[in-house]
Amino acid sequence: MKKFLLPIMSLMMLTAVSANAQQQRNATVPSYTATKEDFKPNLVNQPGKQYPMVNSEGAVRVQLRAPGATSVQLDLGRRYDMTKDENGVWTGTSAPQDVGFHYYQIIVDGTPMPDPGTVSFFGAGRWGSGIEIPSTDMDFWQVKDVPQGSIVEKYYWSKTTESMRHCYVYLPHEYDLNPTKKYPVLYLQHGNAENEYGWAVQGHTAQIMDNLIAEKKAVPFIIVMDYGQGQNIHLTGKYAPVEGAAANDAFQVVLLNDIIPMVETEFRVYTDAAHRGMAGLSMGGGQTGRIALANPTMFGYIGMFSGGSMTVEAFQEAKGLEKTAKLIFMSTGSKENRPAVEQAEALKKIGVNAVSYVSEGTAHEWHTWRRSLYEFAQKAFK
Amino acid sequence: MKKFLLPIMSLMMLTAVSANAQQQRNATVPSYTATKEDFKPNLVNQPGKQYPMVNSEGAVRVQLRAPGATSVQLDLGRRYDMTKDENGVWTGTSAPQDVGFHYYQIIVDGTPMPDPGTVSFFGAGRWGSGIEIPSTDMDFWQVKDVPQGSIVEKYYWSKTTESMRHCYVYLPHEYDLNPTKKYPVLYLQHGNAENEYGWAVQGHTAQIMDNLIAEKKAVPFIIVMDYGQGQNIHLTGKYAPVEGAAANDAFQVVLLNDIIPMVETEFRVYTDAAHRGMAGLSMGGGQTGRIALANPTMFGYIGMFSGGSMTVEAFQEAKGLEKTAKLIFMSTGSKENRPAVEQAEALKKIGVNAVSYVSEGTAHEWHTWRRSLYEFAQKAFK
Repeated sequence: MKKFLLPIMSLMMLTAVSANAQQQRNATVPSYTATKEDFKPNLVNQPGKQYPMVNSEGAVRVQLRAPGATSVQLDLGRRYDMTKDENGVWTGTSAPQDVGFHYYQIIVDGTPMPDPGTVSFFGAGRWGSGIEIPSTDMDFWQVKDVPQGSIVEKYYWSKTTESMRHCYVYLPHEYDLNPTKKYPVLYLQHGNAENEYGWAVQGHTAQIMDNLIAEKKAVPFIIVMDYGQGQNIHLTGKYAPVEGAAANDAFQVVLLNDIIPMVETEFRVYTDAAHRGMAGLSMGGGQTGRIALANPTMFGYIGMFSGGSMTVEAFQEAKGLEKTAKLIFMSTGSKENRPAVEQAEALKKIGVNAVSYVSEGTAHEWHTWRRSLYEFAQKAFK
Repeated sequence: MKKFLLPIMSLMMLTAVSANAQQQRNATVPSYTATKEDFKPNLVNQPGKQYPMVNSEGAVRVQLRAPGATSVQLDLGRRYDMTKDENGVWTGTSAPQDVGFHYYQIIVDGTPMPDPGTVSFFGAGRWGSGIEIPSTDMDFWQVKDVPQGSIVEKYYWSKTTESMRHCYVYLPHEYDLNPTKKYPVLYLQHGNAENEYGWAVQGHTAQIMDNLIAEKKAVPFIIVMDYGQGQNIHLTGKYAPVEGAAANDAFQVVLLNDIIPMVETEFRVYTDAAHRGMAGLSMGGGQTGRIALANPTMFGYIGMFSGGSMTVEAFQEAKGLEKTAKLIFMSTGSKENRPAVEQAEALKKIGVNAVSYVSEGTAHEWHTWRRSLYEFAQKAFK
């Protein structure tokens, strides 16, 4: 857990939001009056817990027995005042939320606490509560009775940080059945204030891949999920960053000097650019774009989900990328205003195999990114 | 998460404790006055969190900013009243705790909540806060720069429950480097109100094994960690239990019909009793003893950590066990009063290779069980 010991200051950086979003976050509003009373226990509730619940409009209802409390709020970005009944049970309902996965907390007498009703997820720079707003297309990331790959938890020595680092690796089901076969490998990164658990847990990477491979919609490949929060990667010795180096560069140093060499030693992967990809969401998409442009002969498949950009000018300046890049994939939720489509169209005009994907009805959250992986994986390494 | 959806009633069963322990649990005592002010942030704190802390006598100090609260307690079995300073920050200190790992919670105005200071662990029938009281011999389960095995997360179809089940599998580092080599396999079970995460997370199974194998103190073997809480295993069809069948029997049905066949298909393991072992802690030790006695030709290596028992009479009634059993290992913490030594001595007298281990200075918690695995693993499959 050493890498988690970041100073309070950088923790605050991680959770920093725009002034406007900050106002929204602080805005306290009355509990929403649901138009439908078809609330069901959430998918990520703790064993035996009925609350939190979600209804068919995507409203979130939480409940907490707190007879002694004088104020309880549901904090889902906006703060919804909860009301107490005669038994001291507080109940609050949020306005309908975007489909997909959201981090939240309960505020008891002014103190933010995890909701004891849900299991714990890492996001917003902390382990805390999460809620899944069901979508009509959840099937693709459900655990099904198809040949199951696995998520491998791995520690490894990092010479650039002089510490042990921790990652997750998805292996397709057939990996152990073909002990001499090599596989393509995708390096898949989380967003700001998240960590390597993100894609493995709330991202449902294994289920997305197992289901795609079972349907023969994707070729089997390995996915490496590591920790990329630059501010918390402390490079040492000759790898220590020069004055003013962007924090995000630190992950590039670790990726090139530790992660890729470890993966190419410990796992049966091809080591050429045509079988190596990088993708990421939000901050991880930005890292993907920068790292691919800075290392134009390394990654044949490049995915930027709700983050990162690649202009024609940047592409043309990255000598060799025109030969290396087999696919440049850019996605955005329809509720975001990201230039995925425009940038992909511009790249196509100069003959690049650029693909854009717009996730209909979703915003800057995990369902957009699960769908993006689902789309990207069907085009990768083919 | 389907298997986690247990009814409230059985959740209450899980957390049921003796009347005496219940009284202790409810007892509220003043915050402890530490004799040493050398408190340090705990090993399992969230990123950037200073609290909870532990001092060199094993006292736990928690802190929570809750200006609006009128009462805050630290619940570590006993409830310690916390006190509020002029900034609304509540601080409380527990009496010195036994070394090792403990589940706890914070009670805010009468409402039990997870401590936002720690990451989340499954125990006491819930995901919640944990604290590690450092011991002088923690080195053996630390992550070190030795060849790293991996913890594999795996879903598989269970025909006995007609659902997908979830387990963790430890693979030694050399497993992928020897694609035709077969390995012995240990089925390792958690305790009451815990789950398959226990050995993989707070049990530090991978670190214990990696360090032992690196020191050549243990032979490489595979460890399977699954979910064994009988009350929550709902057998279906022809596997449905007969009237009055003990809940713990349900795990035996799953182990024999689902888990072992899956492991022997998906992993390169030997399939004879001489290369198959079962061990568990507390409730899992009880299951190990019952299952080994009921299936006397299946398990060559049998480990009961702080739970389970094997009398000479039971052993002799289990026809074939005298030929199958290569090792019967029984352990107890010195602060428990379990008959590990007596029972092992009695078995030795009839020629059984029985070994007992007493974990000095530890009680019924994870450090006893980590040490037990450390001892057992050095004797297993040799």
